[in-house]
Amino acid sequence: MSAIVVLAGGVGAARFLEGVVQVAPPATVTAIVNTGDDFALHGLMIAPDLDIVTCTLADLIDREQGWGIAGDTTACMDWLGRLGGPTWFKLGDRDLALHIRRTALLRAGYRLSAVADAFRQALGVAVRILPMSDDPAPTHILTDAGELHFEEYLVRRRAQDVVQGVRLHAAGPALPTAEVLAALAEARLVLIAPSNPVVSIGPILALPGVREALRACSAPVIAVSPIVGGAAIKGPAVPLMRAVAMEVSALGIARAYSDILDGIVIDTVDAGLAPAIAALGLRVTVCDTIMRGPAEKAQLARAALALGTAVLEG
Amino acid sequence: MSAIVVLAGGVGAARFLEGVVQVAPPATVTAIVNTGDDFALHGLMIAPDLDIVTCTLADLIDREQGWGIAGDTTACMDWLGRLGGPTWFKLGDRDLALHIRRTALLRAGYRLSAVADAFRQALGVAVRILPMSDDPAPTHILTDAGELHFEEYLVRRRAQDVVQGVRLHAAGPALPTAEVLAALAEARLVLIAPSNPVVSIGPILALPGVREALRACSAPVIAVSPIVGGAAIKGPAVPLMRAVAMEVSALGIARAYSDILDGIVIDTVDAGLAPAIAALGLRVTVCDTIMRGPAEKAQLARAALALGTAVLEG
Repeated sequence: MSAIVVLAGGVGAARFLEGVVQVAPPATVTAIVNTGDDFALHGLMIAPDLDIVTCTLADLIDREQGWGIAGDTTACMDWLGRLGGPTWFKLGDRDLALHIRRTALLRAGYRLSAVADAFRQALGVAVRILPMSDDPAPTHILTDAGELHFEEYLVRRRAQDVVQGVRLHAAGPALPTAEVLAALAEARLVLIAPSNPVVSIGPILALPGVREALRACSAPVIAVSPIVGGAAIKGPAVPLMRAVAMEVSALGIARAYSDILDGIVIDTVDAGLAPAIAALGLRVTVCDTIMRGPAEKAQLARAALALGTAVLEG
Repeated sequence: MSAIVVLAGGVGAARFLEGVVQVAPPATVTAIVNTGDDFALHGLMIAPDLDIVTCTLADLIDREQGWGIAGDTTACMDWLGRLGGPTWFKLGDRDLALHIRRTALLRAGYRLSAVADAFRQALGVAVRILPMSDDPAPTHILTDAGELHFEEYLVRRRAQDVVQGVRLHAAGPALPTAEVLAALAEARLVLIAPSNPVVSIGPILALPGVREALRACSAPVIAVSPIVGGAAIKGPAVPLMRAVAMEVSALGIARAYSDILDGIVIDTVDAGLAPAIAALGLRVTVCDTIMRGPAEKAQLARAALALGTAVLEG
């Protein structure tokens, strides 16, 4: 059984995973998911990336938005607003069930890992879904308006503030779970999804032991660049990468991961960067990386898997 | 300004209060509401009687059920069930906003009294709504199936178990709030709504100092019997009254409250009990007490107020 481990953020990773499960048996796939976006609102524990990945793979996601549940309503949130509660983060009625149940289980003493596993099973997802950590590991964005939780920066303030820096694991030390370390140790192939390198993949790589495990592992490590033609496919990657002095290009992605990477899949529009990436000692596959629909998702996953195989075969 | 204080349970009290606000300025009315039914579900603090009273007076109640919010949906609860959560207590999506916001505010350190006041103001209710206590004061029902929280007995197990007894304030000592004691001290008229004497009014009267305050107060104390023709208008009053050795009749109600009562309003079908009640030293008004609509509610409230006036005039 070839075990594929995918380091994952939110929307981009979820779509990529939909491709992976078309070209590999879903039960052999494990997603290690960023929890840096997790936060509490209305006293409820919200885990955006875990929910996006789980609900996308369950085919329950609102595909227009990329997050939230298809056909969801907002009766509860409308009333929360009426009662004076914050409404800047949209919570659908079905969506809220995830947050309510997660919060109840966490308060009852369950680990986030156990909750994530229960949810993916309840929603019929065969892919194993591992939160990167059971510890709180909030990502803070340092801006000219002060230090903000990532979701406050992104959603509440619509990514309008000038980004000066990023503070990962802002609540203090966070550890990867035993499941995460075991999955990395047992992986036959590690894929880094086309997610934000700073705030989606960054928090996973910053956990003690994770970068070391990826450096040491015998499995090929293949990334898919989330930067196409110098721009992010989705989200605020550009200001965040700039704030941490990453070059905003597929080459910048390759450099950011170069100590752990064997190969990278970049978009055809970035073909000109292939020699510079190869010069870092990395294999490069150039193909269309824009995931318009199921066929493109499968094709991108197939390219990443093939690159992994090529690395193994030397 | 004549201040009217109404001791209140859930549905019956809420309907009676709708009558009171037709015959007295709402801002002069204070409801002291039972919190013995309050419990936690999905980690959320649910306060059935407070919500019923508040939403009824806000004209937002589901009038078919007598509880819940009119036109509410259950998208969240359907998903809570899908995720393995308990579904025996129906929670509408709008309804949930009350529980989520209340729980968040309580966890943030607000008193239940402050939350109840914020909610009634947000929903445009002029009547002051006071929880009987800020302390947890759950009512337990002792049954042949064990000791159950009242809502478990009533809703989860549909009041099917044999009742052997009742344990009020089962979490330990609970105190009335300062606002409750002040309202009783300043009252010009105290009304006991037609609520269950054991599990709705009982928990209020069992708070240290409340019964004493009612005995000592100069304001007339007038009850409206919730028992008509030997049966409860609504809910499981019969087995609960029997379990605590109360006679299930308007006379039983009068006896249960006789130490604090000046008068009682009973239904025309119970007119034959009037002499026995009068023999207890109480004034009696006999009238139609079934609150079919707004007119009957107002008429019943008017009868209670008139009886209070009659007591004052000797």
